[in-house]
Amino acid sequence: MRAKDRTELRFGGAPFNKIRCRRAYSIHADAASTVKLAEIDPSKLSVTKTTTPKDLLPPEELVFGRSFTDHMLSLEWTASDGWLQPRITPYQNLSLDPATCVFHYAFECFEGMKAYIDSKGQVRLFRPDKNMIRLNKSSARIALPTFDGEALTHLIGELVKLDKRFIPTQRGYSLYIRPTMIGTQRTLGVGPPGSALLYVIASPVGPYYPTGFKAVSLEATDYAVRAWPGGVGDKKLGANYAPCIVPQMQAASRGFHQNLWLFGEEEYITEVGTMNLFVAMKNKETGQNELLTAPLDGTILEGVTRDSVLALARERLQPKGWMVTERKVTMKELADAADEGRMLEVFGAGTAAVVSPVRRICWRDRLVECGLDDHSEAGPVAQQMKDWIEGIQHGDEEGHPWR
Amino acid sequence: MRAKDRTELRFGGAPFNKIRCRRAYSIHADAASTVKLAEIDPSKLSVTKTTTPKDLLPPEELVFGRSFTDHMLSLEWTASDGWLQPRITPYQNLSLDPATCVFHYAFECFEGMKAYIDSKGQVRLFRPDKNMIRLNKSSARIALPTFDGEALTHLIGELVKLDKRFIPTQRGYSLYIRPTMIGTQRTLGVGPPGSALLYVIASPVGPYYPTGFKAVSLEATDYAVRAWPGGVGDKKLGANYAPCIVPQMQAASRGFHQNLWLFGEEEYITEVGTMNLFVAMKNKETGQNELLTAPLDGTILEGVTRDSVLALARERLQPKGWMVTERKVTMKELADAADEGRMLEVFGAGTAAVVSPVRRICWRDRLVECGLDDHSEAGPVAQQMKDWIEGIQHGDEEGHPWR
Repeated sequence: MRAKDRTELRFGGAPFNKIRCRRAYSIHADAASTVKLAEIDPSKLSVTKTTTPKDLLPPEELVFGRSFTDHMLSLEWTASDGWLQPRITPYQNLSLDPATCVFHYAFECFEGMKAYIDSKGQVRLFRPDKNMIRLNKSSARIALPTFDGEALTHLIGELVKLDKRFIPTQRGYSLYIRPTMIGTQRTLGVGPPGSALLYVIASPVGPYYPTGFKAVSLEATDYAVRAWPGGVGDKKLGANYAPCIVPQMQAASRGFHQNLWLFGEEEYITEVGTMNLFVAMKNKETGQNELLTAPLDGTILEGVTRDSVLALARERLQPKGWMVTERKVTMKELADAADEGRMLEVFGAGTAAVVSPVRRICWRDRLVECGLDDHSEAGPVAQQMKDWIEGIQHGDEEGHPWR
Repeated sequence: MRAKDRTELRFGGAPFNKIRCRRAYSIHADAASTVKLAEIDPSKLSVTKTTTPKDLLPPEELVFGRSFTDHMLSLEWTASDGWLQPRITPYQNLSLDPATCVFHYAFECFEGMKAYIDSKGQVRLFRPDKNMIRLNKSSARIALPTFDGEALTHLIGELVKLDKRFIPTQRGYSLYIRPTMIGTQRTLGVGPPGSALLYVIASPVGPYYPTGFKAVSLEATDYAVRAWPGGVGDKKLGANYAPCIVPQMQAASRGFHQNLWLFGEEEYITEVGTMNLFVAMKNKETGQNELLTAPLDGTILEGVTRDSVLALARERLQPKGWMVTERKVTMKELADAADEGRMLEVFGAGTAAVVSPVRRICWRDRLVECGLDDHSEAGPVAQQMKDWIEGIQHGDEEGHPWR
């Protein structure tokens, strides 16, 4: 039936006499997958172990996403059969026809998640359910197949257990896991892919700040726009990344580490580089401490770390008198807070760095200072969040539901 | 020096005391390629011919972009060396590490162009200079390398000559050529790719309308937005395609062939599916015939067929009293023209179909009829443009500069 849908699409839809002209108000991205095809079946997993195990790199030589473990997990999907047998194989190249649609039309989405070794030597994944939900949303938005998140989490667990020796045990170290889905149809026609490949690779990584926090400087960017209403900025699609590199290089050429993406004439703050942004300031009306971030309005990535920071803030800062809010904030509001001595701190939040403190933001012709003393590299909220989240990740908080 | 730039970018840019805070007003996408590396050198071309030539398909079995010629052209680029030796090899799979950046961050752009056999049996490319300029713009916008367009055109000519037997000679048939550039760096860090692959494949194609024009119906789409000012909608990036498929499937499920992408509260018409849009109507003020299309404001693909239609209209319709204009037009203006009997015809323009007549557009709760009689599948302007352009493509107009 999915295959049938696709044929109809390609050859023109219903005859016109059946058309009811009506306005569509929203995207129902799951419209394509109404029919039962084979689901992912972890019991069918085949495992082929490598015969040439890699040497482990010394922890200090680990670079994010540059070296990978011995194995990878692969699952093929076809529109006629659904999900085929899961396979764990030696890490190896993909062999793809040059006409494959992933190379031409960016049928690709991914996740970033981490595995840790806790104090008892056990492997922990941090909130994998959130990543599975998001990957399904990303995938459906570009007409790639959806899947059973628990089944994939189980299979990722098998991969991680097999390659457990690659997970560094030191605090701040982890195994970065990259589930990736690509369209594999071998034709140049622009339409929903008839086949796809979901694969998972894993890279041992060190702490983002090996020698402690290092606060970054941002360039508020309005000449390039990362995301817009009705677009795909809230999904983890490859399409959201390549267009951001040249603005990033230009910010770097002027001495700034990342772009702070502004949106619209109002210059709303949205995200920083590839992270969500948090601002701690004294509220102008009440003088109360406020931790705020942009709302999930379709232009903001639904960050797992963002969600974790919000949840921890509501659980542990709110009782201490903090307001925790998701609302639209303009760059001018930030600058006013800085001018009026109400700015406390600013930080990015993402899987790679957990939190990333911000020292200052270049906005038009001025520098907005973000509350850090010259000799300080992180504010207390950023430091506290990092400690809490890493503690949960490494299993210090016995029985926490996120592990 | 390019490699040096990249290192600086990754490790944080200039020290802060060198920073001048200034506002950036536009994207200078060529910022990354200020230094002379090796250019494409056609004299170094190596050719490995296939030992297993394919059978030619009967012309009636040709499907757009599904079967390919015997050979492909490949050029590798590295940030340290520039363009390496061009190679023509048998058509073959690409073997890529699963961490390659094209799979994760959509470092990919492409072109669509056509080769024809003229009445003297010679191979003709249609306006390849325009495609080379656009591919360079697309590539630079996502931090992929630029290149000498004449050198690549020469190499494409070599590929087409080698595979000349695949070019159908019948009127309306051609060889569709797909130059594609992908980032090939094998790390997950988000930054400018340190290596790339430019490859060219070719697919023999039949006429888009084998049995004559077939007018399409469009759904005016506002809930999903293809492009945004400050985005990349004017570049031929993979990133612009995957996000449009679900809206296309939804339009198809309601019986419409394509989306007419509207923009903004004003509901400006922008593009149709993957084509530019042309409207012929009687001007409200003057009653004069007007052929209009959306201006190149950064949200519109700079179509080669769009440019050709405009040039031919200025050369051949303007002397007959037509106005030819590039301006923003709202959907309401179209509907008013239809209501007031001023609508003449509407058509899309693109490489695949050349022109594609539109019968009606579903806009909110109404159907806007686009000037075609029930028994007619194309208006006179669309028909005339198709005849003129195909005539030039097939060499009927002796010495035309576009061949």
